[in-house]
Amino acid sequence: MLKIALGQMDVIPGRPDLNTKKMLDMIHQARTQQADIIVFPEMAIPGYLIGDMWEQQSFIRDCEAFGQDIIAAAAGICVIFGNVAVDWEKRGDDGRPRKYNACFVAQNGKLVPDHRFPYPFRIKTLHPNYREFDDTRHFYSLRKLALDLKQDTESLLLPVTIKVSGKEYHLGCIICEDGWNDDYTVDPIAALAANGPVDLYINISSSPFTLGKNNKRNRVFSSQARDTATPLIYVNTVGGQNNGKTVYTFDGFSTVYNCAGEIITYCPPFREKLEYIELDPENGGLNHIPVAAADDNNISSMYQAISYGINKFLSTINMKKVVIGASGGIDSAVSAALYAKILGPENVLLVNMPSKYNSQTTKDLAAQLAANLRCLYTVIPIQEAVDLTISQISQTAVVCPANKKTHHLNITPFITENIQARDRSSRLLAGIAATFGGGFTCNANKSELTVGYSTLYGDQAGFLATLADLWKHQVYQLAGYLNSCIYEEEVIPQATIDIVPSAELSPDQAVDEGKGDPIIYPYHDYLFRSFIEYWHKATPEDILTWYQEGSLEEKLGCEAGIVSRLFPSPKEFITDLERWWNLYAGMGLAKRIQSPPVLAVSRRAYGFDHREAQNGSYYTRAYNNLKAKILSTC
Amino acid sequence: MLKIALGQMDVIPGRPDLNTKKMLDMIHQARTQQADIIVFPEMAIPGYLIGDMWEQQSFIRDCEAFGQDIIAAAAGICVIFGNVAVDWEKRGDDGRPRKYNACFVAQNGKLVPDHRFPYPFRIKTLHPNYREFDDTRHFYSLRKLALDLKQDTESLLLPVTIKVSGKEYHLGCIICEDGWNDDYTVDPIAALAANGPVDLYINISSSPFTLGKNNKRNRVFSSQARDTATPLIYVNTVGGQNNGKTVYTFDGFSTVYNCAGEIITYCPPFREKLEYIELDPENGGLNHIPVAAADDNNISSMYQAISYGINKFLSTINMKKVVIGASGGIDSAVSAALYAKILGPENVLLVNMPSKYNSQTTKDLAAQLAANLRCLYTVIPIQEAVDLTISQISQTAVVCPANKKTHHLNITPFITENIQARDRSSRLLAGIAATFGGGFTCNANKSELTVGYSTLYGDQAGFLATLADLWKHQVYQLAGYLNSCIYEEEVIPQATIDIVPSAELSPDQAVDEGKGDPIIYPYHDYLFRSFIEYWHKATPEDILTWYQEGSLEEKLGCEAGIVSRLFPSPKEFITDLERWWNLYAGMGLAKRIQSPPVLAVSRRAYGFDHREAQNGSYYTRAYNNLKAKILSTC
Repeated sequence: MLKIALGQMDVIPGRPDLNTKKMLDMIHQARTQQADIIVFPEMAIPGYLIGDMWEQQSFIRDCEAFGQDIIAAAAGICVIFGNVAVDWEKRGDDGRPRKYNACFVAQNGKLVPDHRFPYPFRIKTLHPNYREFDDTRHFYSLRKLALDLKQDTESLLLPVTIKVSGKEYHLGCIICEDGWNDDYTVDPIAALAANGPVDLYINISSSPFTLGKNNKRNRVFSSQARDTATPLIYVNTVGGQNNGKTVYTFDGFSTVYNCAGEIITYCPPFREKLEYIELDPENGGLNHIPVAAADDNNISSMYQAISYGINKFLSTINMKKVVIGASGGIDSAVSAALYAKILGPENVLLVNMPSKYNSQTTKDLAAQLAANLRCLYTVIPIQEAVDLTISQISQTAVVCPANKKTHHLNITPFITENIQARDRSSRLLAGIAATFGGGFTCNANKSELTVGYSTLYGDQAGFLATLADLWKHQVYQLAGYLNSCIYEEEVIPQATIDIVPSAELSPDQAVDEGKGDPIIYPYHDYLFRSFIEYWHKATPEDILTWYQEGSLEEKLGCEAGIVSRLFPSPKEFITDLERWWNLYAGMGLAKRIQSPPVLAVSRRAYGFDHREAQNGSYYTRAYNNLKAKILSTC
Repeated sequence: MLKIALGQMDVIPGRPDLNTKKMLDMIHQARTQQADIIVFPEMAIPGYLIGDMWEQQSFIRDCEAFGQDIIAAAAGICVIFGNVAVDWEKRGDDGRPRKYNACFVAQNGKLVPDHRFPYPFRIKTLHPNYREFDDTRHFYSLRKLALDLKQDTESLLLPVTIKVSGKEYHLGCIICEDGWNDDYTVDPIAALAANGPVDLYINISSSPFTLGKNNKRNRVFSSQARDTATPLIYVNTVGGQNNGKTVYTFDGFSTVYNCAGEIITYCPPFREKLEYIELDPENGGLNHIPVAAADDNNISSMYQAISYGINKFLSTINMKKVVIGASGGIDSAVSAALYAKILGPENVLLVNMPSKYNSQTTKDLAAQLAANLRCLYTVIPIQEAVDLTISQISQTAVVCPANKKTHHLNITPFITENIQARDRSSRLLAGIAATFGGGFTCNANKSELTVGYSTLYGDQAGFLATLADLWKHQVYQLAGYLNSCIYEEEVIPQATIDIVPSAELSPDQAVDEGKGDPIIYPYHDYLFRSFIEYWHKATPEDILTWYQEGSLEEKLGCEAGIVSRLFPSPKEFITDLERWWNLYAGMGLAKRIQSPPVLAVSRRAYGFDHREAQNGSYYTRAYNNLKAKILSTC
C-alpha cells in the first residue's frame, strides 16, 4: 500500500524561491501525514511559461540550486517533481548549455539513479510546439538524445524503481505531453510498459486550461490506465501564467485513475490542494469506489476560468483596483460584473463617457449597472474634448516649406468615430486609472478583435483584454450566467442584454432606432471562429466551397437558414466574406499586434497562441477560380 | 562548365501567386541566358514568416499547386527552389498533415528522384528554434524522419544527381540552418560529403538580416567550402517579412565560394538580382578571381537595413504617407530624416505639439528640421486639451452607491506627464494621420523600450517602432550618418544632436537648464543591452558579480571609469540596478506587449525575437547573498 500525496500547487512562474518554499511546506505536511510519495507538477520550481528567461544562466543555476533543496528534503518520503535539468557539458540546438524539461525522483536525500540511463532524472520525450507551447525552443527532448546516443527513443523510457517499506515499486514517470502521444510516432506509455513492469504511471504536467480539455484528458488518460491495466496519477499545476500576449489559467484537476481506467479521486479545479490517496498497486486501485469526473465544457467552467484568470493576473501585476468605461452595453457590463465580484465593488470605478451620440437609454443603463453592482461611479462627457480635437486638427494650417503654401486637413465621420473612442480610453480612462491607483480594462470581445471592429488606443486599450477570447454570443451567455448563478439577481440590466449591440459613435448607430454594429453576430461569430479556431483553419476557399455545397451552416455550426436570409445572392455572400477576410488579415491583425494581453479560454486564443504575420489577405487560386465560376453562373 | 543563375528574389510572404509569377519570369530570363541551373531561396513560393497560415490546408494546397507550375517550367534548365512539401498521408507532431521545409530540384518538367530516399525532394535537417524562428512548430525535420525510419540522419543526406549536357553533377542541397550546424550534433555538409561525391553545395536560405551576420556567414560558409574542397552556392531572399511583433529585413547577399573558400561573386544586399556565374566544378571555381566580401557590421549597413525595412513594411501595409510628432529631439528628427528620404518630404507631415513645458529651443529646432527636410509642417499646442483633461478628471465627483458619498480624484505631476504624452499621440497624431491618409510613427528607441521610459498610447504608439532596435547611442550615430552621408548636409540640426535628451513633460526636464532623461545613456545603454542581447542574458547576479570583480565596464563595453563616477558607493550602484531591472521586467514589459511592431537590426530585438512573460522581476538567491555581503562590508 502506498500513501501518495498529490501536490496540486499554485506554481508562480519565474519564482523558484517561492515555489520551493511552498514545496518544502507541502513535503513537510505530507511527511506528517505519513505519505510515502509526494508528486509535484511539471516545472514546479521555475514555472513553465517564463519566455526567454531560460537564457539567463544565473536563473537556471538558481533553479538547480533550489532543486537541490528539494532533493535534500526527500527524507522519509519519496519526492517526485518537475524542474529544469541542465547538462552544462553539452549544448542544446541553440548552442547554450543543454536544458531538459525533467522529472526528478528523490528519496533519502538523493536522486534515484538508473545505471541504464545517462542522467539521474527523466526527460520529457514529446515536446509540444503548437498553440502557446515553445518546448523545443528551450529544451532538448528525449527523442533528440536518443538520436545522439544512436538508440531507439523507446529503449530510453525506463521505469524508476523506488523502495518503500522494503518493497520495490516501479514508476512510469512521464511529463505532460508524453501522455498525449496520439499525433506522435513515439508512445511513451507503451514504451515504459514494454520496458516494465510498471506498477504506477505518474504524469506530471503543467497543462493550461482550455474549455473542454479536461473531459478529453479523462478519456485519453483513462484509456491509458485501462490499456496498460495500471493505475495512473496525473498531477497538474494551478495558477496563472502568461506568454506576454496571452494569459493562461491552469486548472489543476489532478486525477488518479485505477487500473480499469476509472477515476478514483481528483483535486478540485483552480484550487491549490494537497490531496492524499492510498493506493495498492497490487490491486490496481480497484478497492476505491470510482467517482464521476466533473464536466469542464460548460458556462460554469468558462466563468470559473475567466474569474480565476483575472484574479491571478491581477496578483501577478499587483493591481487591486480597476476602472471600467461603462457604455451601457453588454461587454462593459459583463466586465464590470466580473471585476466587482473579484475586487469588491468599492475597488471598481465605472465611468460613463457620453458624447452627443449616446442615447439616454444607454446612459441610464450604465448608471443602473453601477447601482446594481454597488460600484463607484462617475460620468465624464467627452463632447467638449472631441470638438476641440476636431477643430484643432481641421483648423490648423499645414505648411509646405517647398512652396510656402498652406492647406487644411479634412475630418470624415469615420475619423470622428475613432477620435471619440480614443478620447475615452487614452485621454480619460488612462488618466483616471492612474489617479485611482489601478488600471483600466479592455472589454473587446473576440468577434471585434478578429476584424478590428474597435479603435486602437481606444476601446481596444487596457491592461487586460478580459473577454477577448469570447465570441459575442458567449459574452451574452456569460451575462446570463452572472445574473442567474453568480449574483442571483439582475445586476446586468435585462435591457443591456436586449438592446442592439452598438458603439454609438455616429447617428448610424442609434440604438433607440435599432441601429448598431455591422457585425451580424449570429452568423459572423461562427464564420470568424472558423478562421482561427478550426483545426484546419478555414479560408475563403473552404467557406466558398461549403457555401456552394450547401454545407456552410452545418460546417460553421450557426443556425440553419441564416445564410440565405442574410445574403440573397452569391455576390452579396462573397462581398461580405471578402470584406471581413480582408479586415481579419489587415487592420484587425495590425490592431491585435498592439492589443492588451488576451485571457485565453478557447482552443485558440489571439496572441502567442495564434501567431500571425502582418502580410495582408490572400486568396488561393482555387478560391479565385471557384468565385469566378459561381459569379459567372448566377 | 555550369552556368548557374542565382535567383535572389524579393519573396513576398504569404503570396505564392506573386512569388511564382516572379520565379517563372526569372526562369525565362535565365533560360534565355542559357543558364544550366537556376537557384531560388528557401520557401521561395510561400515565404517564410507567415505565422500560423501553415495551418490553412487550402494555403498549403495552393503552394503545392504553384510548385507544380515551377516544376513544369523546368524545361531546358534545372530549377532548384524552396517550398513547403506536404505528405498528406502522414502527420506532423501537431497531428496535422505533415509539412516539410523542402528543397526541390526539377529538371525536364519533373522532380529529380532518388530511390534511396522516401521523397522526391530534400528535407531541412536542422530546424532553428531560437530568436524569431519557429521551424519545429510547423515542419517535420529530417532528424525526426530519421528517427521514424530508424536510420541515421546522416544516411539520409544524399547528394542529388542531375545531368547537364550529358554530364552528371552531384549537388549537395541544404537549407539555411543546415549550413549553421556548429551547435547541433548533426553536420549536414559532412554527411553529404561522406555520401558523396559532391561537386557543388547549394544552400538555399531565407535568412533575416542581423548587423554583422553576413560577415560571420562568410567565415562559416567559406570554411565549409574549403574543408570539403568543394564550391558552395548560397542563395538568400531579399525583402521584408514579419512575425507580427517584429519586422525583419532579408539582405540576400547571395554568394558563391570556390573550393578554396574564396568568394568569387556575390549579389548586392537588399536588392533583387538575377546573377550568373559560370562554374566548372572540376576546377572548383578556382579560375575566378576572388572578390572581397562587403562588411555588414557598420553604420552604413545599419542605415541600409532600416531604410529598406521601412520601405518594405510600408509597401506591405500599403502606406504612402506618414505623420511624425516632431519634438525637436533626436529620435523624432532621425525618424523624420529616414521617412522623408523614403517617401519624399511632401508625404511626411511633421507636427510639433508643445505644452507649457516645451522650450523655445526645441520648438525652434522642430521647425528648423521641417524646413531642412522640406517636410510638411504644422504646430498644434496641447495645453488647452491637457488642462481640460486634468480639470475633468479632478473636478468630477466619484459617487459611491453604498453610502452615496462622493470624492474626487487627485492628479499627480507624474500623471500629468503621461496625460501630455497620450494627448499628443492618441488624441492628435492618430486623428491627424487618419486625415492625412497615413499612419504615425513611433520614435521610441531600444533604451526607452527596455525600461518603459515612454507612455503607452503616448509616445510608444504608432504603426511601426522604427528605431526600437537601436540603443540611444546608435540613434546618435545614425543622426550623424544621415547628415554626413545620406543628405550630405546638416538636415538634423546640430543643436538637436547636442542638446540634453529630454521628454520636456515637467519643469524637472527643462532642456535649457540642462535637465533631461533619467536614463544615463553612456552607462544604461550598455547595461540594458546585457539584459537582452547577451548570448547568456545578464541578470543582476551577473552584473553585481562583475561589479564586485571590477570587470563590469569591460563586460558591458561601456567607457572605463563611468561606473564609479556615477555611483560613489555600492549601495547607489545596487539601487540603480534594481530600479531599472524592476522596470525592465515590470512596466517596461507591460508596455512592450502593446508596442507597435519593432524593426529588427540587432542580434536580439524586442517582440517575437525575445519572448517574454509578464511575471515581474526576480532576483536569484545568489544575487541576494552577494548583495547582502557587499552591503554589509561597505
